[in-house]
Amino acid sequence: MLNAQRTIDDLKELRNFSGNEWGAQRVSFTPIWDEARVWLQKKLEEIPVEVHRDEAGNLWGTLRGKSDQELVMGGHLDSVPNGGWLDGCLNVMAGVEVMRRIHDQYQGKPPVTVRVVDWADEEGVRFGKSLFGSSACSGNLDMGEARGLKDGDGVLLPEALRLQGIDFEKVKDSHRELAKAAAYLELHIEQGPVLLDLDLSLGAVLGTFGVERHAITFKGQAAHSGSTPMNRRRDAFWAAARMSPEIYAIAERHNGVCTIGSCTTKPGIVTSVVEECRITLDQRNLSAAALAKMLEEARTASERFAVEGKVEVSWDRIWRIDPVLFDPELIALCDESVGEISGKHFRLPSGPLHDAAEVARAGVPTVMMFVQSLHGISHNKIEDTKEEDLKKAVVAFDHLAGKAIDWICRKRK
Amino acid sequence: MLNAQRTIDDLKELRNFSGNEWGAQRVSFTPIWDEARVWLQKKLEEIPVEVHRDEAGNLWGTLRGKSDQELVMGGHLDSVPNGGWLDGCLNVMAGVEVMRRIHDQYQGKPPVTVRVVDWADEEGVRFGKSLFGSSACSGNLDMGEARGLKDGDGVLLPEALRLQGIDFEKVKDSHRELAKAAAYLELHIEQGPVLLDLDLSLGAVLGTFGVERHAITFKGQAAHSGSTPMNRRRDAFWAAARMSPEIYAIAERHNGVCTIGSCTTKPGIVTSVVEECRITLDQRNLSAAALAKMLEEARTASERFAVEGKVEVSWDRIWRIDPVLFDPELIALCDESVGEISGKHFRLPSGPLHDAAEVARAGVPTVMMFVQSLHGISHNKIEDTKEEDLKKAVVAFDHLAGKAIDWICRKRK
Repeated sequence: MLNAQRTIDDLKELRNFSGNEWGAQRVSFTPIWDEARVWLQKKLEEIPVEVHRDEAGNLWGTLRGKSDQELVMGGHLDSVPNGGWLDGCLNVMAGVEVMRRIHDQYQGKPPVTVRVVDWADEEGVRFGKSLFGSSACSGNLDMGEARGLKDGDGVLLPEALRLQGIDFEKVKDSHRELAKAAAYLELHIEQGPVLLDLDLSLGAVLGTFGVERHAITFKGQAAHSGSTPMNRRRDAFWAAARMSPEIYAIAERHNGVCTIGSCTTKPGIVTSVVEECRITLDQRNLSAAALAKMLEEARTASERFAVEGKVEVSWDRIWRIDPVLFDPELIALCDESVGEISGKHFRLPSGPLHDAAEVARAGVPTVMMFVQSLHGISHNKIEDTKEEDLKKAVVAFDHLAGKAIDWICRKRK
Repeated sequence: MLNAQRTIDDLKELRNFSGNEWGAQRVSFTPIWDEARVWLQKKLEEIPVEVHRDEAGNLWGTLRGKSDQELVMGGHLDSVPNGGWLDGCLNVMAGVEVMRRIHDQYQGKPPVTVRVVDWADEEGVRFGKSLFGSSACSGNLDMGEARGLKDGDGVLLPEALRLQGIDFEKVKDSHRELAKAAAYLELHIEQGPVLLDLDLSLGAVLGTFGVERHAITFKGQAAHSGSTPMNRRRDAFWAAARMSPEIYAIAERHNGVCTIGSCTTKPGIVTSVVEECRITLDQRNLSAAALAKMLEEARTASERFAVEGKVEVSWDRIWRIDPVLFDPELIALCDESVGEISGKHFRLPSGPLHDAAEVARAGVPTVMMFVQSLHGISHNKIEDTKEEDLKKAVVAFDHLAGKAIDWICRKRK
């Protein structure tokens, strides 16, 4: 029988030995992370299920069923430094609890194979690249880029992996783990305030936002702040500043989000008009077409402000990713489960990326379920969720797992 | 007889031995500056006039007249690194030429005493504090602050002065030099584009702008760029950015100038809403009342944007100085001289500060004359003025000196 309280107890146990007064400290490839994984392996073996680590360092627990078609539930034990107690590990421990229930119900032999995966290095703290384990497994990891990644001490990623017993050149062999995956489920705290604002406990996730990330540089002319009349200025900050209200309007028009996260000025002194102003722009949308429109509108606006301010503007892409849409049938099953447990139906996109997006990109039907974040805050020790919502989440996730097993069985016929 | 060409020749001679391909290199308290002053002393002694250095390191050339009432003409030989060939030294060499003419005309005994001063360290390059010599002489130098000033190598100003044979604790004794000063005149390149834009060679300067210089810090909340809906953001950059068009409107309303010269953001990363944004604001106006109004309006606007953006705002004053208005009668004489030589009359305020402001603050009737800057650019090797304008400037400045001598004589009666 499912025991949602056991998931909360597991999470508190984990927090006690792998966190401190500043929050969770399970940074990937550190001794605390290793310790957490040994603890997880023990929990899995107690069910009991088979446990192994794949070529990319992802940890898998497998309960073999009557069919080799697999239901996979995933998450990550690793955290940012001073992280929250739920981000990533809620998914893993809810998956473990659901697996316990399935093991009990089917006396160790469910209709389909059921797996829990703890993805390696989701947060990307040490090497600045998130979703390492899941992108290796999905096949999307850029090997050329990853081979050159260095941590703050100059250690290369392949060398750090070697010390973990992982051969960098073989990490994509982990892709075979997904060969029989028929559905992938991930429960996660929302890490945003949408459910909180609407007073909802749970929501079904439609997919993860596509992202366009650029640096925009406006170039004008430095000039003395005392002797240069206002109408003679070519003020790069003026043009860059105009972008801020503009991106709010663009985001609203297209139901996405836009963020200017950084602004730097040169020469950047109190007595000179700004010659060069560089801002970063992060744009996200669940629709690829809307994202492209948002980018186009921002570019057009920047060019208009450049002309008006008699400055030049140039754009450099930092990074981009397409939106990832989850499986419509699994979304419907997730929505059903959310309704059954919380009494309300709600679907929302995910702003942040998740391992689930990598699995979906590998062609596995995927869905995520979100549970409300108190404060709407994550990556912070104050990250939290009401215990009653955590329990609802585990139960709803279990409902979803049950429905997904039936769905896999139906599809096989 | 006045020979304006001789001033240009002098300036070129000075440029040849104290500049290089990157511009003028007469930084105060360096061997090149010392060399330039030895050269100046020789030029003064050739007239001949008495030469001495005061307690603050200012170099004075004095032609004693029938009256001990003095006409003083001032400038500075020191430059910024890679500076222009005219900034500061045009005033000194034009003063020397005018003194030659007066010496000739009155056979060494003019009606009033005539002096040329080369102020020490106008630019403040090494210790970050401009107008050293003139502010010591005017009595406005903040001794407590100046005592603690260090250069980039950690050398204290008093120690650097000691190596020049100057006793820091006695620099204000130089104030006695102004005891008999009845009028102070300074010719300077405009260092801005106003005369250039109006196709004018010369202008009479009304005074120097008062300055209010503040750091403004907006404080919101860091939040994930993907998971935080636009209407939930407390975006410090949004509020700061709104200030940019606002200060243009404020400057226009009050006929002053406003500059946001620097913008920094925290955490300043592409994936986070800006928690803290700090901008600098430099506001200048010739009217003390208008300057106060400009400051008040900027403050009010910042508070409005803070409320609208759900962020907090705080202001820290960096520096301020009152406007300095020049003497109305001397302005009228300057305007007459400008009209006689250029055929046009124009009066304008000075955005940058000048030694003349210090002299005026010491109670000496003062006026400046500006000559057009090509490109409207200064503190740069491309700083230049057409030779025909330089000649007009020297002749007009000589007219002004003649009128000022008559004015001093009239006032004595």
